[in-house]
Amino acid sequence: MAPLEFFRLKTRDEVLALYVRFAPTAAETVPLAEAWGRVLARDLAAPESLPAFPRAGMDGYAVRAQDTFGASPGLPQYLELVGEVAMGEAPTLEVGPGQAARLPTGGMLPAGADAVLMVEYAAELPDGTVEVRRPVAPGENVVQPGEDVRAGEVLLAAGRRLRPQDLGLLAALGVTEVPVHRRPRVAVLSSGNEIVPLEAHPRPGQVRDANAYLTLAQVEEAGGVATYSGIVPDDAAALRTALGAALPGADLVILSGGSSVGARDLSLGAIAALPEAEVLVHGVAIRPGKPTILAVVEGKPLLGLPGHPASAAIVMQVLGRPLVARLGGVRESPSKGGRVLARLSRNLAGATGREDFVRVRLRPEGDTLWADPLLGASALLSPLVKSDGLVTIPLGQEGIFQGELVEVELFPG
Amino acid sequence: MAPLEFFRLKTRDEVLALYVRFAPTAAETVPLAEAWGRVLARDLAAPESLPAFPRAGMDGYAVRAQDTFGASPGLPQYLELVGEVAMGEAPTLEVGPGQAARLPTGGMLPAGADAVLMVEYAAELPDGTVEVRRPVAPGENVVQPGEDVRAGEVLLAAGRRLRPQDLGLLAALGVTEVPVHRRPRVAVLSSGNEIVPLEAHPRPGQVRDANAYLTLAQVEEAGGVATYSGIVPDDAAALRTALGAALPGADLVILSGGSSVGARDLSLGAIAALPEAEVLVHGVAIRPGKPTILAVVEGKPLLGLPGHPASAAIVMQVLGRPLVARLGGVRESPSKGGRVLARLSRNLAGATGREDFVRVRLRPEGDTLWADPLLGASALLSPLVKSDGLVTIPLGQEGIFQGELVEVELFPG
Repeated sequence: MAPLEFFRLKTRDEVLALYVRFAPTAAETVPLAEAWGRVLARDLAAPESLPAFPRAGMDGYAVRAQDTFGASPGLPQYLELVGEVAMGEAPTLEVGPGQAARLPTGGMLPAGADAVLMVEYAAELPDGTVEVRRPVAPGENVVQPGEDVRAGEVLLAAGRRLRPQDLGLLAALGVTEVPVHRRPRVAVLSSGNEIVPLEAHPRPGQVRDANAYLTLAQVEEAGGVATYSGIVPDDAAALRTALGAALPGADLVILSGGSSVGARDLSLGAIAALPEAEVLVHGVAIRPGKPTILAVVEGKPLLGLPGHPASAAIVMQVLGRPLVARLGGVRESPSKGGRVLARLSRNLAGATGREDFVRVRLRPEGDTLWADPLLGASALLSPLVKSDGLVTIPLGQEGIFQGELVEVELFPG
Repeated sequence: MAPLEFFRLKTRDEVLALYVRFAPTAAETVPLAEAWGRVLARDLAAPESLPAFPRAGMDGYAVRAQDTFGASPGLPQYLELVGEVAMGEAPTLEVGPGQAARLPTGGMLPAGADAVLMVEYAAELPDGTVEVRRPVAPGENVVQPGEDVRAGEVLLAAGRRLRPQDLGLLAALGVTEVPVHRRPRVAVLSSGNEIVPLEAHPRPGQVRDANAYLTLAQVEEAGGVATYSGIVPDDAAALRTALGAALPGADLVILSGGSSVGARDLSLGAIAALPEAEVLVHGVAIRPGKPTILAVVEGKPLLGLPGHPASAAIVMQVLGRPLVARLGGVRESPSKGGRVLARLSRNLAGATGREDFVRVRLRPEGDTLWADPLLGASALLSPLVKSDGLVTIPLGQEGIFQGELVEVELFPG
């Protein structure tokens, strides 16, 4: 390992670019009913066409289009009503020249017919004929076989997180189970002599393990299966042992470290001392979150979070979620959702040499959505709880002026 | 019941306003580790203050601020180093006049000290003194007791969906379990002679029950517990029986009906014939989704969805999700998240007398995010799968021109 002093701060993009070296989890098969939110492990092609037969898109009458040409309210055409197509059954009747058959929405177009005349433009007469008051074109109001999906067409690409409508389409095609990536297992380990379990009554100088609960929920939200591996004291050997114990059962180990320089150095030393460990990142050019560590141990990533709760939460949002998503096989841009535009309600100065993430609360006022910066210290939890999302001041930008339009990356549920 | 003909179309807002009559589910207690995404059933006040003791916000030296006044790099002050505060322990030392003690970030401020001098502005000399090169103000770099949270303060209001950072804050306060609303149970029932189960091989004229899978996942996504109650044929007595069987175990029953006028009338008749049923809405002024039904049966809501998959999905998004959220106790505006601004890539005409929901796909091109309308029929599933969200053309607006900036409501995961 190179001496630590030679590490320079990496930018967020440089850290994200390192994730390609971590392999997504293996595929497993799940029933369709349990596939919502899971990530496809391979491209899915349509096993058949949809619809499988020509269907009525509207309530009306199955007709031969040419029999309706020229019809108008003033000069209607008249067709012989030969019966009705029942839902869910192949029609037993045929529509010949000059004939029509009742056809409900979704019903199968009978042989002979090539269009559906909407019920609004027709009337049934007592003599068993249908009055046609408008012409229809061939194919009108008919959903053709394969119009929705063609057999063999790739419907959903590997790496897609399945949405409700995706399940609907797969159900329509009779896909009863789907290959998805196993949800990545993430072990969360806390370190620090001052940290006590949630249930403990802290003595003066001690604090409860708040960050672990925050991180565990963020992992779940990102699609991982989170496990709490407990609290380790500030001791190199104990840390090495705990990390070594967490690694075999996990796809990612997150170490929630202390905030002091000593605690950081201890974490880094313990990680670097693991067999086959390589420290990839020690320090990220973001604020808050600079003391973040990324290492690879036996091919698995190990993420060391800063100890201040706001720093840990923001590092998880900016770097941890994409890592969990990568391990879970997600290949789509995670940037599509959860952003709103708002106007900044006060001047914000950036951090020299660092990308700056500022917690903001959204406040609608008339037609304007304001983003109010919450400038509490990173050590405080309540500003994080009051905030709706993050405004980014890019690297190298001096700041953002009051009244400017900013993009707010919303914290997910 | 009033004759059906007297029902006029209700607007979306009119339908949403009816939801106040449905009571949220009862409260239950869950462990904090399982509370992510759950909805608080009552206001939570802080049981204690946070932090509980004065903590160092930075690595440095605990000092009496007045001992540093006047210090500068050219004219440093010198303090006696009396020891070090260990993490997680109440300090045994005291800082007297002219003294300093090492203090790591998060460590407890010892008696006598009132500020922390950052390590960057100090140096330890071989003679056991600390050189001070900058003055600090009283309280500087100290997180005061109660600065994050004051005991008794309401932290989180009833009706809030708990986020990761909320769990972090509650953990810090030693809250081991929280009162949340029971997740609403939602029974989803499909009706139609043409509908066959997912596993069946449909004969000509038959289709698989795609909508149920779509709806079930949308219910789960909205925080409900969804149950599939199967498929009922188009028969009034069978429908009544199935609805009657689904109601006792559910907080909401969703009936996914057929698309034909006959199927709709049958659904409506079966619902109206249930004991104590009151039809509140029969027809909503939205496109697609007009044939939506809302009824109340024994105080419970019953939602009838249109049969076309796109219509059903959009009604669930626009009316179903808020109903599930209401039953689940959510009191926050659901409009905060999941919206982006984009430019419309073609002219869109609105629907006369209806609020129009147009599926769009987002397409980044250079600096512009385009919203491409996907204009497939409501009967098609694939445009829904290809779309990222909805653009709304408000009631009474003729349309939206190409190039205009529109707000896209993103489909949730």
